[in-house]
Amino acid sequence: MRMYDLIMKKRNGGVLTKEEIEFMIHDYTNGKIPDYQMSAMMMAVYFRGMNKEETVNLTMSMARSGDMLDLSAIEGIKVDKHSTGGVGDKTSLVLTPMLAALGLPVAKMSGRGLGHTGGTIDKLESFPGFSVSLTETQFIENVNRIKIAIMGQTADLAPADKKLYALRDVTATVDNLSLIASSIMSKKLAAGADAIVLDVKTGSGAFMKTEEDALALAKTMVEIGTSAGRKMTAIVSDMDQPLGFAVGNALEVKEAIETLKGRGSEDLKNLCKKLGAGLLVSIGRSASMEEAEDILQKTIDDGSALAKLAEFVHAQGGEEAAVYHTDLLPQASLVEEIPSGQSGYIRHIDTEEVGIVSLILGGGRETKESEIDLSVGLVLRKKVGDYVNAGESLAVIHANDPEKLRQAKERFCTTYHFSEEPVERPAFIKAVITGNQ
Amino acid sequence: MRMYDLIMKKRNGGVLTKEEIEFMIHDYTNGKIPDYQMSAMMMAVYFRGMNKEETVNLTMSMARSGDMLDLSAIEGIKVDKHSTGGVGDKTSLVLTPMLAALGLPVAKMSGRGLGHTGGTIDKLESFPGFSVSLTETQFIENVNRIKIAIMGQTADLAPADKKLYALRDVTATVDNLSLIASSIMSKKLAAGADAIVLDVKTGSGAFMKTEEDALALAKTMVEIGTSAGRKMTAIVSDMDQPLGFAVGNALEVKEAIETLKGRGSEDLKNLCKKLGAGLLVSIGRSASMEEAEDILQKTIDDGSALAKLAEFVHAQGGEEAAVYHTDLLPQASLVEEIPSGQSGYIRHIDTEEVGIVSLILGGGRETKESEIDLSVGLVLRKKVGDYVNAGESLAVIHANDPEKLRQAKERFCTTYHFSEEPVERPAFIKAVITGNQ
Repeated sequence: MRMYDLIMKKRNGGVLTKEEIEFMIHDYTNGKIPDYQMSAMMMAVYFRGMNKEETVNLTMSMARSGDMLDLSAIEGIKVDKHSTGGVGDKTSLVLTPMLAALGLPVAKMSGRGLGHTGGTIDKLESFPGFSVSLTETQFIENVNRIKIAIMGQTADLAPADKKLYALRDVTATVDNLSLIASSIMSKKLAAGADAIVLDVKTGSGAFMKTEEDALALAKTMVEIGTSAGRKMTAIVSDMDQPLGFAVGNALEVKEAIETLKGRGSEDLKNLCKKLGAGLLVSIGRSASMEEAEDILQKTIDDGSALAKLAEFVHAQGGEEAAVYHTDLLPQASLVEEIPSGQSGYIRHIDTEEVGIVSLILGGGRETKESEIDLSVGLVLRKKVGDYVNAGESLAVIHANDPEKLRQAKERFCTTYHFSEEPVERPAFIKAVITGNQ
Repeated sequence: MRMYDLIMKKRNGGVLTKEEIEFMIHDYTNGKIPDYQMSAMMMAVYFRGMNKEETVNLTMSMARSGDMLDLSAIEGIKVDKHSTGGVGDKTSLVLTPMLAALGLPVAKMSGRGLGHTGGTIDKLESFPGFSVSLTETQFIENVNRIKIAIMGQTADLAPADKKLYALRDVTATVDNLSLIASSIMSKKLAAGADAIVLDVKTGSGAFMKTEEDALALAKTMVEIGTSAGRKMTAIVSDMDQPLGFAVGNALEVKEAIETLKGRGSEDLKNLCKKLGAGLLVSIGRSASMEEAEDILQKTIDDGSALAKLAEFVHAQGGEEAAVYHTDLLPQASLVEEIPSGQSGYIRHIDTEEVGIVSLILGGGRETKESEIDLSVGLVLRKKVGDYVNAGESLAVIHANDPEKLRQAKERFCTTYHFSEEPVERPAFIKAVITGNQ
């Protein structure tokens, strides 16, 4: 088999067989196929696409390119959740304790990554003492005992995807549905969960700008997971404005805690309930989404989800008191309200710009080596559809450096767009896709 | 400027500016842009194409990537000729002495290359003692004195094209009109001639399989050359069967000499006259193709072209007597007629297969290191449209090795296809394209 022939085949609109894809991924991962042939192939795939079978085969080949986690020592149906990412996305912090409170084993391996804020691991480190450095034995014990553990990524999950994504990233071949779906799903399948729920974001602050694209991605990923024998659900949710109000690590933890206390953003709470309900229905634990959402709401109402968060934080060495007294979380020294320059209805928020404000303040990583300041960020006071008077606060910025605060304010002042007419609040949950459709 | 943005632009159907193309070719040639980005770009170009301006700019950037030959020390309008290649193509051996006999300065720099037979340089080395190792001074002196000299490629012509072609060759991005045209024309423009005539072959033995594709390539190359201020003509000619009768180095030299003596293949003679006439008209030396062809015919009739060949061979150290006594050229030891297995009209000849027979005999190079046997090859006795009786000879094979002869015969026996009905001889000259159209 020659890579040249496979490029030619795909270029001419052909369908790659399972064996051809396996050969391509295997030999690319071990360096036998050079980058310049793979990038030509990726561009051919960009133009010609891949059918469902090719996409599934690509995902499976990449999933098998490194370690496949064996979670069989954990009792019950292991669940996992993935978000395609956005600004202010603290869903995992809320959802995983809710699921664990219901007895579902949440065994998550997480990375840190780059972005406007840190990843889930970084956010959890807002709890003083919290550590993700568990041994595999501790990890499994914790999940069996309290149903939840999160560890830093130690295994070599889907190295083919890592290598291929780095290549796609510099050759303008990222945005193809099959390639995006297989990249995400290869890691999820290697991570070993039995049931997976996907949060696919859409809008100006998301990777998928249109609802149509997000829906297509969600469906493709559900198909891939189902083909691989996993229970799958996907929710398409709005990222045309930041999720909830807080953007920043400790600030998001605080908002997540508020949500588990039954307060905070309705959108955030509803999204967590939808995601959890999708999981409960997919594994047959609930008969309907409505029933499942009620069960999940109870974990908030009876305080069991919040207690689970505290238990989880404690189990991994963190200061559990901070769950109940959020002033124990890292606090910024400079807190400043940002008044609106005009009156009107909020028409649109430049979501990626809000993320950049957080990055400027030091809340995210620009490079792998960047240090994150867990205390900084911003909390929005107004969202799309709200009315604001000139001089009224749009948001509060939390900073530790006067110069960064100045830059953040400057950048922030162009993110809000106004309308004189009332603005309808956009639908937040766009679609629910299950593996049985 | 970032290569990533240029790939994205082309991928999305954009038009690259002159500056962008110059940046891309310059930084690719000096290694600042990696192969994996360029191969993604080439695949994007394959799908999106390049417009006329982009193609001209790409050609000029590649032409300027290395040495641009300065032929100004040669008096008169310097002429050059290029063929896209085929089986039995000895056109240069016939045409260049005809042009020189008319006083047109032919200053050719040639490579050896791979193929079914050697290149023009290899063929000329059939004259015992002939050498292409001229100094630049000798080269220019020879052209000024006798109007013709051919030297091996010493200059670094269009290194960008060399590097890019090698990449395209392994990434399935060769067959795009703009890329093919710019590859050929970048070298021709760097080689410095004022007037260029192109012989674009079409048919089963050519790179361009269809007349439509050949015509498009010819037109594009004429446009490029014209844009660069050169006098341009292109002929689209048939390569659905070998050109003339001989395939092999010394055998082709012999056929070229026969043609200059007014004998030999009519197709070959007509093609040389058309190519030469195109040049004469393009530089204003003749008012019409017909007039120009008459002038060229006279160089055969009065023996001046043959005498020029002898003068040229002598000037480069070769045995000029071989021009008049072709038995002084290298002779193979085994000469065998191949009888036809059936009677009928010749419907089709597998032209590439005929080339491979020559290669098997040792007449061409499989790798750069291969030694060529100048004496071997084959001479067809029947061509498309001819009638043959079973047992009558189809061709004569010239070999030096019994085992290679056996393999060549075996391979040859499937190349001819027959019909019981008379077969029309295909039109040989398909089109003439001039820069003034």
